[in-house]
Amino acid sequence: MFLTRLVYASKKSPKFCSSDIDDILETARKHNGSLGITGLLCFNRQYFLQALEGPRSAINSTYYRITQDKRHSDMLILSYEEIRERNYGSWNMGYVPESSLTAPQTLKYSIGSEFDPFSMSSKSACMLLNDLSKTVPII
Amino acid sequence: MFLTRLVYASKKSPKFCSSDIDDILETARKHNGSLGITGLLCFNRQYFLQALEGPRSAINSTYYRITQDKRHSDMLILSYEEIRERNYGSWNMGYVPESSLTAPQTLKYSIGSEFDPFSMSSKSACMLLNDLSKTVPII
Amino acid sequence: MFLTRLVYASKKSPKFCSSDIDDILETARKHNGSLGITGLLCFNRQYFLQALEGPRSAINSTYYRITQDKRHSDMLILSYEEIRERNYGSWNMGYVPESSLTAPQTLKYSIGSEFDPFSMSSKSACMLLNDLSKTVPII
Amino acid sequence: MFLTRLVYASKKSPKFCSSDIDDILETARKHNGSLGITGLLCFNRQYFLQALEGPRSAINSTYYRITQDKRHSDMLILSYEEIRERNYGSWNMGYVPESSLTAPQTLKYSIGSEFDPFSMSSKSACMLLNDLSKTVPII
Amino acid sequence: MFLTRLVYASKKSPKFCSSDIDDILETARKHNGSLGITGLLCFNRQYFLQALEGPRSAINSTYYRITQDKRHSDMLILSYEEIRERNYGSWNMGYVPESSLTAPQTLKYSIGSEFDPFSMSSKSACMLLNDLSKTVPII
Amino acid sequence: MFLTRLVYASKKSPKFCSSDIDDILETARKHNGSLGITGLLCFNRQYFLQALEGPRSAINSTYYRITQDKRHSDMLILSYEEIRERNYGSWNMGYVPESSLTAPQTLKYSIGSEFDPFSMSSKSACMLLNDLSKTVPII
Amino acid sequence: MFLTRLVYASKKSPKFCSSDIDDILETARKHNGSLGITGLLCFNRQYFLQALEGPRSAINSTYYRITQDKRHSDMLILSYEEIRERNYGSWNMGYVPESSLTAPQTLKYSIGSEFDPFSMSSKSACMLLNDLSKTVPII
Amino acid sequence: MFLTRLVYASKKSPKFCSSDIDDILETARKHNGSLGITGLLCFNRQYFLQALEGPRSAINSTYYRITQDKRHSDMLILSYEEIRERNYGSWNMGYVPESSLTAPQTLKYSIGSEFDPFSMSSKSACMLLNDLSKTVPII
Amino acid sequence: MFLTRLVYASKKSPKFCSSDIDDILETARKHNGSLGITGLLCFNRQYFLQALEGPRSAINSTYYRITQDKRHSDMLILSYEEIRERNYGSWNMGYVPESSLTAPQTLKYSIGSEFDPFSMSSKSACMLLNDLSKTVPII
Amino acid sequence: MFLTRLVYASKKSPKFCSSDIDDILETARKHNGSLGITGLLCFNRQYFLQALEGPRSAINSTYYRITQDKRHSDMLILSYEEIRERNYGSWNMGYVPESSLTAPQTLKYSIGSEFDPFSMSSKSACMLLNDLSKTVPII
Ligand SMILES: Cc1cc2nc3c(=O)[nH]c(=O)nc-3n(C[C@H](O)[C@H](O)[C@H](O)COP(=O)(O)O)c2cc1C
Ligand SMILES: Cc1cc2nc3c(=O)[nH]c(=O)nc-3n(C[C@H](O)[C@H](O)[C@H](O)COP(=O)(O)O)c2cc1C
Ligand SMILES: Cc1cc2nc3c(=O)[nH]c(=O)nc-3n(C[C@H](O)[C@H](O)[C@H](O)COP(=O)(O)O)c2cc1C
Ligand SMILES: Cc1cc2nc3c(=O)[nH]c(=O)nc-3n(C[C@H](O)[C@H](O)[C@H](O)COP(=O)(O)O)c2cc1C
Ligand SMILES: Cc1cc2nc3c(=O)[nH]c(=O)nc-3n(C[C@H](O)[C@H](O)[C@H](O)COP(=O)(O)O)c2cc1C
Ligand SMILES: Cc1cc2nc3c(=O)[nH]c(=O)nc-3n(C[C@H](O)[C@H](O)[C@H](O)COP(=O)(O)O)c2cc1C
Ligand SMILES: Cc1cc2nc3c(=O)[nH]c(=O)nc-3n(C[C@H](O)[C@H](O)[C@H](O)COP(=O)(O)O)c2cc1C
Ligand SMILES: Cc1cc2nc3c(=O)[nH]c(=O)nc-3n(C[C@H](O)[C@H](O)[C@H](O)COP(=O)(O)O)c2cc1C
Ligand SMILES: Cc1cc2nc3c(=O)[nH]c(=O)nc-3n(C[C@H](O)[C@H](O)[C@H](O)COP(=O)(O)O)c2cc1C
Ligand SMILES: Cc1cc2nc3c(=O)[nH]c(=O)nc-3n(C[C@H](O)[C@H](O)[C@H](O)COP(=O)(O)O)c2cc1C
Repeated sequence: MFLTRLVYASKKSPKFCSSDIDDILETARKHNGSLGITGLLCFNRQYFLQALEGPRSAINSTYYRITQDKRHSDMLILSYEEIRERNYGSWNMGYVPESSLTAPQTLKYSIGSEFDPFSMSSKSACMLLNDLSKTVPII
Repeated sequence: MFLTRLVYASKKSPKFCSSDIDDILETARKHNGSLGITGLLCFNRQYFLQALEGPRSAINSTYYRITQDKRHSDMLILSYEEIRERNYGSWNMGYVPESSLTAPQTLKYSIGSEFDPFSMSSKSACMLLNDLSKTVPII
Repeated sequence: MFLTRLVYASKKSPKFCSSDIDDILETARKHNGSLGITGLLCFNRQYFLQALEGPRSAINSTYYRITQDKRHSDMLILSYEEIRERNYGSWNMGYVPESSLTAPQTLKYSIGSEFDPFSMSSKSACMLLNDLSKTVPII
Repeated sequence: MFLTRLVYASKKSPKFCSSDIDDILETARKHNGSLGITGLLCFNRQYFLQALEGPRSAINSTYYRITQDKRHSDMLILSYEEIRERNYGSWNMGYVPESSLTAPQTLKYSIGSEFDPFSMSSKSACMLLNDLSKTVPII
Repeated sequence: MFLTRLVYASKKSPKFCSSDIDDILETARKHNGSLGITGLLCFNRQYFLQALEGPRSAINSTYYRITQDKRHSDMLILSYEEIRERNYGSWNMGYVPESSLTAPQTLKYSIGSEFDPFSMSSKSACMLLNDLSKTVPII
Repeated sequence: MFLTRLVYASKKSPKFCSSDIDDILETARKHNGSLGITGLLCFNRQYFLQALEGPRSAINSTYYRITQDKRHSDMLILSYEEIRERNYGSWNMGYVPESSLTAPQTLKYSIGSEFDPFSMSSKSACMLLNDLSKTVPII
Repeated sequence: MFLTRLVYASKKSPKFCSSDIDDILETARKHNGSLGITGLLCFNRQYFLQALEGPRSAINSTYYRITQDKRHSDMLILSYEEIRERNYGSWNMGYVPESSLTAPQTLKYSIGSEFDPFSMSSKSACMLLNDLSKTVPII
Repeated sequence: MFLTRLVYASKKSPKFCSSDIDDILETARKHNGSLGITGLLCFNRQYFLQALEGPRSAINSTYYRITQDKRHSDMLILSYEEIRERNYGSWNMGYVPESSLTAPQTLKYSIGSEFDPFSMSSKSACMLLNDLSKTVPII
Repeated sequence: MFLTRLVYASKKSPKFCSSDIDDILETARKHNGSLGITGLLCFNRQYFLQALEGPRSAINSTYYRITQDKRHSDMLILSYEEIRERNYGSWNMGYVPESSLTAPQTLKYSIGSEFDPFSMSSKSACMLLNDLSKTVPII
Repeated sequence: MFLTRLVYASKKSPKFCSSDIDDILETARKHNGSLGITGLLCFNRQYFLQALEGPRSAINSTYYRITQDKRHSDMLILSYEEIRERNYGSWNMGYVPESSLTAPQTLKYSIGSEFDPFSMSSKSACMLLNDLSKTVPII
C-alpha cells in the first residue's frame, strides 16, 4: 500500500551487448505494467541510472530481480522514499537515450560533463532525472 | 459550527444494481442540499470514493446513514479534518463517472492503474479527488 | 497608533426597518471618514457581518457606539487583530447588498448556503469578506 | 498497514444501564486485544469520549461495530489521523471513570466544567485525553 | 463551541468607590461560574486589565454586559482569539491586587513602571497577565 | 562594510521655508552620491519620512548631520536594519512630492488619510515607502 | 564518502536453523568491522529487522551480499538515507534478542503486538529501532 | 506606545575625564527613571556600548540628547527594534565596569579580545550585552 | 563527489598587465574544462570577483593554484558551500567585463557604486554574481 | 569585521617530523593571539583537521600562510561561514592529541574508525570538532 520511489545506478557488465537495451526495455515494460511500476531509465553505454516507482513490495521484488541481472553490476541505491504522487507515471519504463544525456544537462548536476551517476549525490541524481523527464523526448 | 471534510472508500455490495447510482445521486443531492453538504463521488462499478464537506454534525449523521446502506460495504475512512473553505462547494454531490477515472490519472496517485481506493494512502486519495475536480467534467 | 481590524456579526432587531440601511451607511461613512476608519458591511435582511479597520482606540469607541444601536442585537466579535495594512482602505464603509451574497459564495465558507455569520469560524468569516471585496461590486 | 487514531464522542442512550460499562470494557478489551487496538474511554454517565488506535482497517470495522451498539447514539467523529506511534499503547481500552473527570481538568479544555465532548473542538478533545492519560489513574 | 479569550483594559470612572471591587468580584464569579467563564482581573485603583476566557458567545454577552457598567469607562480590547486551552482555568475570576502589580513586573512589559494597560501592546499585555498568574498570589 | 537601512520621521520646524526642499535635495544628493547612500524622501509640508541606505558608518554620520539640521525637529527612528540589497538604489535621494502622497495610499498603511509618519508602526512605514517607490513617479 | 543508513526487513527461510543466528552475528561483525559498518539486528525467530550504517558503497555491497543469503528471503527496504551522524555507532552489529522485543514496545510502533516489520511504516520501524537501542540491553 | 530597544557604540572623546562615568550614570539613572527607560552601559576607558529600552519617543529623544554629549563621539547605532519585553528591566542604567569586560567574554563575540564594539556585527553586540547581563555583577 | 561552490575576491597586483586577462581566461577555460569546473569572473581593472563550482577536490586544488598566481594578491574567500545544482554551468569560466559592471548594478549590492568586492558581505557578493549571470552578456 | 569560521583538512607531508607539532602549536598560538584567531587542531600522525575562527581577513591571510607550509599538503576546505559567536573561543589553538581521537568518537561521524577527515562531509567534520571540544581534554 505504500507508494515508493527507488533510484539506483549501475555499471554495464562485460556480458552486456548493444542490442540488450531493447530487450531490457521490452521486459521491463511488460513486468512493470503488470506490477504497477513506472519509471525512467538513462543509459550512456557505460552507466545506468534508473528510477522505479510503485507499490513498496513490487519495487523491492523488482529491484531484487534486477540485482540478479548479469548484464550490469555494482548496483548502488541513490534514493528510496515513500511518495504521495508519481513523477514518471506516464511511462512503464521511459528511456532517455545517450543522445539526450548532453554534456550541459549532465554538468548542471554532476562533477563533470560525462554522465557518471556513481559520483552524484542522491539529491542531484533525482534532480537530473526529474529535469530530463521534462526537457528531453522520452522514448 | 465546525466546517468539516470526510473522505471514505467503500465496496459495491451484491445488492447493488447498475441503476442504483442514479438513485444514490438523486437522494444524496436532495438530502445534502438541505443539510449544507457538498462533495464528490467516484465510482468504477466496484469501489466508491467519496468526499463529504459541511457542518460537523451533518457530516457525521450523513456518514452514519450511508454506513447503513446495504448497496455497499467495508466503509473505510481515509481522511477527516476541520476546514476553512470547501473544495467541492459547487456540487451537492458531484459525480465522476467511470469513464473519467482513466488509468493515467489513477496511476499517478495509486499503486496500480485500476482504481482501488482501499490501497491508497489518505493523502494520495485526497490529492486524486482534488485533481479530478479540476480536470474532468463533473456530472 | 496601533492599526487594528475588528470583524463582528449581529442580528437585525425588530426595531430595524428597511430604509435604515441607507441611514446606517450614511452615518457610518461620515463618522468613519473623520476617524480614519474603513471597512465593509454585508447584510441579508437578517444578519450583519462587518469589518472595521483603523486606529485601535477609534475602532473601540466606534464598536462601543455600534453596540448601543437598537437596530441590531446579539453582537458577536469574530476577529480582532493588529494589522500592517488595510484590506478595505478604499471604502469608508463599503456595502455588499443582499443580491451579492449569492448562495455559492456563501456556501464556500459556511456550513450552509444561507448567509449566517453566527455559524462561521472566524477564519472563514474573514476569508468570505476578503473574497467579496475582490469579486462583487461594492456599493 | 497504516497505524491510525480515531477519536469520537457519543451519548448514552436510554437502553444503557449502569452495569453496562463493565460489559463494554470487557468486550472491548477482548476484541481490541485480538485486533491490535489500544485506546482510552471516558464516561460521565451521560457522554462517552473514546480514542481508538491501531490498524486502519481494524479501526474502521470496530468503529462500525460500535456505531451499531444501541447503548449509545449520536456518534460524532472528532479526529482521525495516521500516526507513527501510539499514545495509549499500554491499554487495550483504558478507562477514565467519572470521578477522574474533575471539573478543573474538564474546564481547562472545554467551554464549561461539565464534561461534554460534543461542544469541544477536535484539538481540545485530543489534548484532554492525552492530559488524562498522563495525570489520572487509568483503570 | 469556540473556546475564546478576550483581554481588555478600562478606566475607573468617578462612579467607582473602593468597596466596589469586592462587589465586582462576587458578581463576576457568580455569573462566570454559570457561563463557563474563567479569567484574571488586575486593578491599580485607576486602570483595569482583564482576561476573560470561555465559550465565544458567553464571552461576547459578558463583555457587552461589562461595557454597560458605569463603574468604568473607555473600554479598549487588547486581544481576542480562539484558544485550545485556558490559561486561567483555575479562577472564575482571579484577582491581582494592586500590591502585586509591582513596578519591576509592570516595567518589564510596559513603557513605564506605573501600571497603564492603555499604553501597552496587545502581546505585552497578554504576557504580563500570564506572568502574573504564575508568579504572584491570586486572590 | 555592513550595508544598512535607516528609516526615520521628523517634523518641519518654524525655520523651514518652502524653497528649502530644493536645497535639501541638492545637498543630500551631492553628499549621498559621494558616500554611497541612496534613499527616498517624502514630505507633505508638515512631516518628513526618509529612508537612507548605504554603509553603516556613513548612514550614522549622515543621520547625525541631519539631526543637527534646524529645518526640522523631533526626529524619530522607525526602523534600522542590516540589508543584503538596496530598495532605493536608483536614487541618491528620490523625492515623493506632496501631490503623490494621496489619501488612499496613505490611508492603506496609516491610521488616517493625512500623512503622519509619527503615528505609524515601523513595518507600516517601511511598507508605504516601498509601495510609493513602485507606484508613483519619483522626482 | 556519503555516510548512509539502510533499514530493511526479511523473513527467516526454511533453510535457517536456530544456531545460525550466532554465525550471522559473528560473520557480520567481522565484515562490518573491516568495512566501517555499524548497526542493529532484531530477530523474533520469524522476521529480521536490521539497520546498517556506514559508507554508501559498503552499505550497498553488504546489502547485496545479504540479499544472496539463503537463510532469509523477501527482503524489503524500509528506509535509506544520507546521514550526518550514526545512531548505532557502538556496535558493529548489535543484537536485540527475541526476549527484548516485548509486546508493549512492539505495539507502540506496530499495528499489533507481534513483531512484524513488514506491516510497519518506514518511520515507525526506524523509531522502534532507535527506541530499542536506548532501552534494552544490546548483545 | 511602542516599546523599543536601541543599542549603540561610541568613542570616548578627549573631553572625557575619568570621574565623568559617575556623573553620566547618575544623570542617566535620574532621567531614565522618569522616562521609563532601562538599559545597560559598558565602558572600557575607550569605547562605550549601551542598550536603551523604553517608549519609542523617549528612546529617540534620549538618544538625541546623548548624541549632543561632548564626552563621546562617533556614535554608531548597532540595533534598533520593537520589543515585547525588556531585557534590562532591572536597571535604569546598569553598568558593566571595565574589570568585567574580560578578554574571554569579549573574544567570544568579537574579532579580537580587546573590547571594540565598532568592529562587531549588530547580532554579536546584542548577544554580548545579553550574556554580560546574566553573568557579571551589574553595578 | 561533493559538488561545491567557492566565491572569492582578490586585488590586481603590480605584476598584472592588461593583456593578462585573455591569458587567464584561456588557461582557466582549458583547465576548468578538464576538471569539471564552471564559473564566472568579474574584473574592473582593480578587483577580481570569481565563482568556481565543481568537484570539492578540484575546487580546492584550483583555488590553491590560483592563490600562487602573482598577477593578483590578497585573496579573500567570501563563500564556500556544498551545492546540488550549478549556477554557472554554461561557462567553463564566463567573463563579465568592466563595461557590464555598471554603477547601478554594483550599487544595489554594495556600499558604493565602485565595484569593490572586499567591502561586500558574502550574501551580497553571491547575489550580485547571480544577478549579473542573468542580466548582462557573458563573454 | 565579519567574524568567520573556516574548517579544513590536510595531510602530513614527508617533510613533517614528530617534534613539529609543538612548533606548529607554539607559532600558531603566538600569531593567532595577536590576530584574534581561536580554533582547534586535531592530528593523528597522518591527517590534520583544523578549525580557525576570527576576523574574515585574518582567517584568509592565516589560511594562505598555512597553505604555504611544507609540513603538510593537499589542503581541503570543508566549511567556511560567517558566525555570530565563536565555538573555540577559549583556545588560541586548542589541540586534540591522537590519543583523544578514539575510534568510537571518530566512527560516529565518519565512514570508518580511522580518523580521515578527507572522507567526511563538511557537516560531519564540524560536528566531530564540536563534539571533541566538549568531551575530551583540550591541550
Ligand atoms: C539496467 C536494467 C534495468 C532493468 N529494469 C527492469 C525493470 O524496470 N523491470 C523489470 O521487470 N526488469 C528490468 N530489468 C530486467 C531484469 O533484470 C530481468 O532481466 C527481468 O525482469 C527478467 O524478466 P524475465 O524473468 O521475464 O526474463 C532491467 C535490467 C537491467 C540490466
Ligand atoms: C456510495 C453511496 C454514497 C451516498 N452518498 C450520500 C450522500 O452524500 N448523501 C445522502 O444523503 N445519502 C447518500 N447515500 C444514500 C444513503 O445511504 C441513504 O440511502 C439515503 O441517505 C437514504 O435517504 P432516504 O432515507 O431519504 O431514502 C449514499 C449511498 C451510497 C451507497
Ligand atoms: C450594522 C450597523 C453598522 C454600523 N456601522 C457603523 C460604522 O461603521 N460607523 C459608525 O460610526 N456608525 C455605524 N453604525 C451606526 C451607529 O450604531 C450609530 O448609529 C451611529 O454611529 C450614531 O451616530 P450619530 O450619533 O451621529 O447619530 C452602524 C450601525 C449598525 C446597526
Ligand atoms: C461507548 C462504547 C465503547 C465501546 N468500545 C469498544 C471497543 O473499543 N472495542 C470493541 O470491540 N467494542 C467496543 N464496544 C462494544 C461494541 O459496541 C460491541 O458491543 C462489541 O464489539 C460487540 O462484541 P460482541 O459481538 O463480541 O458482543 C463499545 C461500546 C460502547 C457503547
Ligand atoms: C472591571 C469590571 C470587571 C467585571 N467583570 C465581570 C465578569 O467577569 N463577569 C461578570 O459577570 N461581571 C463582571 N463585571 C460586572 C458587570 O459589569 C455587571 O455589573 C454584572 O455582570 C451585572 O450583574 P447583575 O446583573 O447580576 O448585577 C465586571 C465589572 C467591572 C467594572
Ligand atoms: C529632511 C531632511 C533630509 C535630509 N537628507 C539629507 C541626506 O540624505 N543627505 C545629506 O547629506 N543631507 C541631508 N540633509 C541635509 C543635512 O541636514 C545637512 O544640511 C547637510 O548634510 C549639510 O551639508 P553641508 O554641510 O554641505 O551644507 C537633510 C535635511 C533635512 C531637513
Ligand atoms: C539477517 C541477516 C543479517 C546479516 N547481516 C550481515 C551484516 O550486517 N554484515 C555482513 O557482512 N553479513 C551479514 N549477514 C551474512 C551475509 O548474508 C553473508 O552470509 C556473509 O556476509 C558472508 O560472509 P562470508 O562470505 O565471509 O561467509 C547477514 C545475514 C543475515 C541472514
Ligand atoms: C556614554 C553616555 C551614556 C549616557 N547615557 C544616558 C542615559 O542613558 N540617559 C540619559 O538621560 N543621559 C545619558 N547620558 C548623559 C547625556 O548625554 C546628557 O549628559 C544628559 O542626559 C544631560 O542631562 P542634563 O540635561 O540633566 O544635564 C549619557 C552620556 C554618555 C556620554
Ligand atoms: C583572477 C584569476 C583567476 C583565475 N582563474 C582560473 C581558473 O578558474 N582556473 C584555472 O585553472 N586557472 C585560473 N587562473 C590561472 C591560475 O592562477 C594559473 O595561472 C593557471 O592555472 C596555471 O596554469 P598553467 O600551469 O597551465 O600555466 C586564474 C588566475 C587569476 C589571476
Ligand atoms: C597543520 C598546521 C596548522 C597550523 N596552524 C597555524 C595557525 O593556526 N596559525 C598560524 O599562525 N600558523 C599556523 N601554522 C603554521 C604556519 O603554517 C606557519 O608556519 C606559521 O604561521 C609561520 O609563522 P612564522 O612566519 O612566524 O614562522 C600551522 C601549520 C600547520 C602545518
